[in-house]
Amino acid sequence: MAMDPLDAAMKKCGADAFVHYAGGEDATMRYLSRFVMHDSFVFFKRHRQPGTIIVPQMEAERASRESIAAVMTRIQAGLPEIIKKEKNPWKATAQMIAGQTGKTLRVSPDLPAALLRALEESARVIVDDGTVDMMRAKKTPEEIRFIQTVQKKTERAMALGIALISHATEKKGILYHNGAPLTSEVVRTEMHKHLMDDGCRAVETIISCGKDTAFPHIIGSGPLRPHEPIVIDMFPRDETSGYYADMTRTISKGKPDQQIIDMYDAVKEAQQIGISIIKAGVPGADAHNAVVDYFKSRGYESDTRGFIHNLGHGVGLQVHEFPTMGPTGGKLEQGYVVTVEPGLYYPEIGGVRLEDMGVVRAKKFMDFTKFEESLIV
Amino acid sequence: MAMDPLDAAMKKCGADAFVHYAGGEDATMRYLSRFVMHDSFVFFKRHRQPGTIIVPQMEAERASRESIAAVMTRIQAGLPEIIKKEKNPWKATAQMIAGQTGKTLRVSPDLPAALLRALEESARVIVDDGTVDMMRAKKTPEEIRFIQTVQKKTERAMALGIALISHATEKKGILYHNGAPLTSEVVRTEMHKHLMDDGCRAVETIISCGKDTAFPHIIGSGPLRPHEPIVIDMFPRDETSGYYADMTRTISKGKPDQQIIDMYDAVKEAQQIGISIIKAGVPGADAHNAVVDYFKSRGYESDTRGFIHNLGHGVGLQVHEFPTMGPTGGKLEQGYVVTVEPGLYYPEIGGVRLEDMGVVRAKKFMDFTKFEESLIV
Repeated sequence: MAMDPLDAAMKKCGADAFVHYAGGEDATMRYLSRFVMHDSFVFFKRHRQPGTIIVPQMEAERASRESIAAVMTRIQAGLPEIIKKEKNPWKATAQMIAGQTGKTLRVSPDLPAALLRALEESARVIVDDGTVDMMRAKKTPEEIRFIQTVQKKTERAMALGIALISHATEKKGILYHNGAPLTSEVVRTEMHKHLMDDGCRAVETIISCGKDTAFPHIIGSGPLRPHEPIVIDMFPRDETSGYYADMTRTISKGKPDQQIIDMYDAVKEAQQIGISIIKAGVPGADAHNAVVDYFKSRGYESDTRGFIHNLGHGVGLQVHEFPTMGPTGGKLEQGYVVTVEPGLYYPEIGGVRLEDMGVVRAKKFMDFTKFEESLIV
Repeated sequence: MAMDPLDAAMKKCGADAFVHYAGGEDATMRYLSRFVMHDSFVFFKRHRQPGTIIVPQMEAERASRESIAAVMTRIQAGLPEIIKKEKNPWKATAQMIAGQTGKTLRVSPDLPAALLRALEESARVIVDDGTVDMMRAKKTPEEIRFIQTVQKKTERAMALGIALISHATEKKGILYHNGAPLTSEVVRTEMHKHLMDDGCRAVETIISCGKDTAFPHIIGSGPLRPHEPIVIDMFPRDETSGYYADMTRTISKGKPDQQIIDMYDAVKEAQQIGISIIKAGVPGADAHNAVVDYFKSRGYESDTRGFIHNLGHGVGLQVHEFPTMGPTGGKLEQGYVVTVEPGLYYPEIGGVRLEDMGVVRAKKFMDFTKFEESLIV
């Protein structure tokens, strides 16, 4: 087995231990400990030793069942004695950590500033430059299975949402379902419930319509309309594994404006160009720039209008994570799971986006997304 | 209007500006900006001036619609020029912040360590000691309405969950519903769907049964059983306002062991004792300690068994936030929204917890929770 990248990073700076402190949705903590707790807790790993988490007594039993790290309670780590003398909770936590680690610490870049300052009182502290982000980017076969699983569930929910729209009736420029206006909210809720039955949690699924689609992150509200672009962008998380999928389709109930049809055609082609370039060793920037160039060749700009965002991003325990596939994107590596999501946005026309997700292999991009791309439904 | 606590904190240390950097679920950022974005972004507030957020171009339109802060794009803040020379994203962000703020900065205690270090290269940086947590603790009338609204929705979902259990049939020591075993998962999913229809998001609702109830944060799985304690602890968030409720009930389908009945009686009485003590000016520790003393008088310990957690905590944009109502809890103030949740836990017997939430007033605790407390259903 190769040397753990965290051990290598510690060795480089002479650190005795690596320290992280987080809770809730923090993906780095989940990755390192495979334990989820609302309140923040300590992870530390001494050089060349397995990781340990320090949790409250009341979480110790669950942590022992669930975490891949060794489990220590705050009592075992001496916190009750420390807080008799030290009332500042950051300083008390720092002293507790110092008691388990050493004089030179490498800490997560996301460590809270207040804890960094408290640790600096008794240790030399080096802030890590993203070692865990890099580790997280390269997915194991197990992680890839988790992501493929949530992608499949995502596609089932996408099919449900699109079916609601394609089966809707039209009256006075508005779509109807079961006698009531078919709104973004209705479609979103039905998709989210379906995902819930599939063991996934989805939030803020974008179901935007018409001119709203020109703003990539407006989630959409109110009645959906025929002959206008509808962007459905969803990023559910599997409740069990914690891994995300991310996917977007743009549809129209009935034929939309020719400008939208042309944009759709360009975006679909741009996506294939991006996909064809991606493989291990190629910089993400190359894929992004190829799409920019292609859009330019079709007369679409790429600044504050047109293609206004990056081509893609990593997906894993966070919906957006390392690597970036934009102008600054570095070399892609085998096992990176990334999105390929070109889009075109014009406030006076609307927007179109298509997003697939897959894994970078030695010689190609293996697309996890099987869902068809078809504008008119 | 009183001086903004952030201005006061800045004045104290001679800071030109206050800076925060976060995204996703970060409650401090949501409180300061009323804007939610997946990726992290900058908030800054110069002394005695309104706050400003710096967002990507693609979020500018939505931010202008939704945020209470002024909105600046990264382009307007000069980031494209900066990243031509500075490839480290933390340093580039720090330079962008420095260009908008000054030589002396007060930063959020949760600011990422890597950004703190980068800011220190060109500014004197003071780490704030929780000013925003304090601001967040004192709820405005609008925030109290938000919390009461989500509490009402929470109680409707609790009623649904309890009804599923109380109407279940029994066969060979297991509860059945519609011919299938009634599991924690089924009850949880039904409650979550109901909350979704009510515009709320609930995750990891605890529905634990039997001995599992002795571990407060085991969420429970598998068939529910009659004559055993079932703990239902839920903390939904209203999707629109972003505010949480938090509530727990313990029930039993049919009569449980006498030990559980006795524990329930003690916990219910302990909760009333806690509630009767809470008012503005009283330390949270006093309420906690009164409950500890009461439990002792009934023969229940409070260390690694018995009452093993704090009496309560603040609730708002986070489900756990300032203040603490435990041994170190300071003076409660008017407008604090807190839980009162005594519990007793014995691995060989099981656990009982009852949790209400309400607001601290000048002369009393105003309980938002109207739901009955009744063990046997």
